[in-house]
Amino acid sequence: MAENIVPVWWDGDAVGYIDQRLLPHVRVPLRAETVDALVDAIATLAVRGAPAIGVFGAYGVALARRLHADDTTFAASVERIRAARPTAVNLAWAIDRVRSAEPEAMLDVALAIHEEQRAVDRAIAQHGAALMPAEGAVLTHCDTGPLATGGEGTALAVIVEACRRGKRLRPILDETRPLLQGARLSTFEFAAAGIHATLIADGAAAAAIGALGVRCCVVGADRIAANGDTANKIGTFGLAIAAAYHRIPFYVAAPRSTIDFSLHSGELIPIEQRSADEVLSFAGTQVAPEGTAAYNPAFDVTPARLITAIITEFGVCKPPYTDSVPDLKTRAQGLFVTAARR
Amino acid sequence: MAENIVPVWWDGDAVGYIDQRLLPHVRVPLRAETVDALVDAIATLAVRGAPAIGVFGAYGVALARRLHADDTTFAASVERIRAARPTAVNLAWAIDRVRSAEPEAMLDVALAIHEEQRAVDRAIAQHGAALMPAEGAVLTHCDTGPLATGGEGTALAVIVEACRRGKRLRPILDETRPLLQGARLSTFEFAAAGIHATLIADGAAAAAIGALGVRCCVVGADRIAANGDTANKIGTFGLAIAAAYHRIPFYVAAPRSTIDFSLHSGELIPIEQRSADEVLSFAGTQVAPEGTAAYNPAFDVTPARLITAIITEFGVCKPPYTDSVPDLKTRAQGLFVTAARR
Repeated sequence: MAENIVPVWWDGDAVGYIDQRLLPHVRVPLRAETVDALVDAIATLAVRGAPAIGVFGAYGVALARRLHADDTTFAASVERIRAARPTAVNLAWAIDRVRSAEPEAMLDVALAIHEEQRAVDRAIAQHGAALMPAEGAVLTHCDTGPLATGGEGTALAVIVEACRRGKRLRPILDETRPLLQGARLSTFEFAAAGIHATLIADGAAAAAIGALGVRCCVVGADRIAANGDTANKIGTFGLAIAAAYHRIPFYVAAPRSTIDFSLHSGELIPIEQRSADEVLSFAGTQVAPEGTAAYNPAFDVTPARLITAIITEFGVCKPPYTDSVPDLKTRAQGLFVTAARR
Repeated sequence: MAENIVPVWWDGDAVGYIDQRLLPHVRVPLRAETVDALVDAIATLAVRGAPAIGVFGAYGVALARRLHADDTTFAASVERIRAARPTAVNLAWAIDRVRSAEPEAMLDVALAIHEEQRAVDRAIAQHGAALMPAEGAVLTHCDTGPLATGGEGTALAVIVEACRRGKRLRPILDETRPLLQGARLSTFEFAAAGIHATLIADGAAAAAIGALGVRCCVVGADRIAANGDTANKIGTFGLAIAAAYHRIPFYVAAPRSTIDFSLHSGELIPIEQRSADEVLSFAGTQVAPEGTAAYNPAFDVTPARLITAIITEFGVCKPPYTDSVPDLKTRAQGLFVTAARR
């Protein structure tokens, strides 16, 4: 698959990234050389996808340490990076891992987190591919490919891996308004992987499940509570309800770093509210009349009871999640990179 | 409310209309002077909304009769107008009413259909307003206001009438991809009526029901089968599933002319498939990579079991619809315009 799609990287003395807002039309490597630039890239969704934000934030903390020898300034910088996207818990997790290292080791930890993410993605794809049907349509939401993780992806990688194994899957992609990650990014990633995907308006999902013979849904996650409740891109909850109505499986694919073991329920997950402008306009074109109000939460929370299984690098969690999810907490950190670690 | 929003009218020797594709930014009256222009206006959604298409088609048949004295050419013209949008049954109904008149009476019948639509809308609004809660958020989909009917509207008119009666409703509008009728048209109509509405991405509906305290959903219809199954703008089915999940009422508001008594089930309703370009781009801006496939049905079918009630000009139909819907067939034609008829 598209190994050449790399959204974030260490660039010698800055954090390199692709501005995903410009994809698929423009693909220019950029450099974040300051904490302001790091925060801006995350907040504007130039860098997005919970695991990719985690990797980017890890590099960002290493950069902030180089820029700021003063502990107070460094600590303030770290908190600014952490606050750039409140829902994705991988960011806080990655930041804390880098920050807990000695200053001279921080870059190595960040590089290890990135390498680990690739191994984690591979493991998720392997576990998930086994759950996919032998053939038929599979519906996914938002973008969960290489651009979203810095590795192969989560939900998208599950579909790609299943296709590699010879399963004849037809991916159906929600366009995912307001920022159209499905239309702009997943289409691009599936094309790079040589897989034919079909785009739909988000509202068409319920009809498509029947009309296109959708066999299951598989999505990513931005934060998973200890009971399995899952925050993911706005629209996921509605899709999960539609899947339950049609009695097809609804899978979440996400690394353990997405799980917030401290939250016993999804109601406690903070949901980022974004600008009304994202809804009032479409791809830069003003759509609604000036002054129209909009409600624009970046994420919604899908109750665990609507989720058939949660696919992680450690295997597949099934209900009751109040048992299977906390079990993951005890697995060894960095399991996948002990050999590959530089 | 916005009595000055008139989407279609008889213009002396042509059919006048507003090109709704350009709203809310540009509002220029246009004239369809040929059958080609009539068909194009319907097929491109310059004129849209099942009842408004019916009124437009009625004027169109009267125009076609004036243009074509030859019966064969006239008949072919009528069939072309009828085929311009296959799902909306009001179009066929209106065409047949005009066509069954003597040539010199056709314009009068078309004018009567338009006048009748205004009375029908008023009656729907009255019946529907009584069903609305005293306060709280009400979610609607696509556009069902004056632009959609040529009168006051259907679902949108229900909300407006309830507000007029002093109910403190907060309308929540699905933007309704791919053509964004909610974002472009309903926002405009609510603003004209002096009512504050809030726009959401279609994918946000399931989250909004809980977060914004949505008390019920009310939508329009393009064709209703005799068992209550309802074809409406793509996205309606998913919204109905979300409403059922949240145990809030889901209402359909539509004139009797929307009911196809000849179809015993929604599975028989023909669903118009539209160009992939509508999903791949918006307002001339390409979103997805070149060559991406898209599935773009204009409508979906909501099963009757998800519909709490169907609001018509004759009152409110409740389940079992297999009894209450066919009952409507026996009501007198033109009930509302006997006094007002010119």
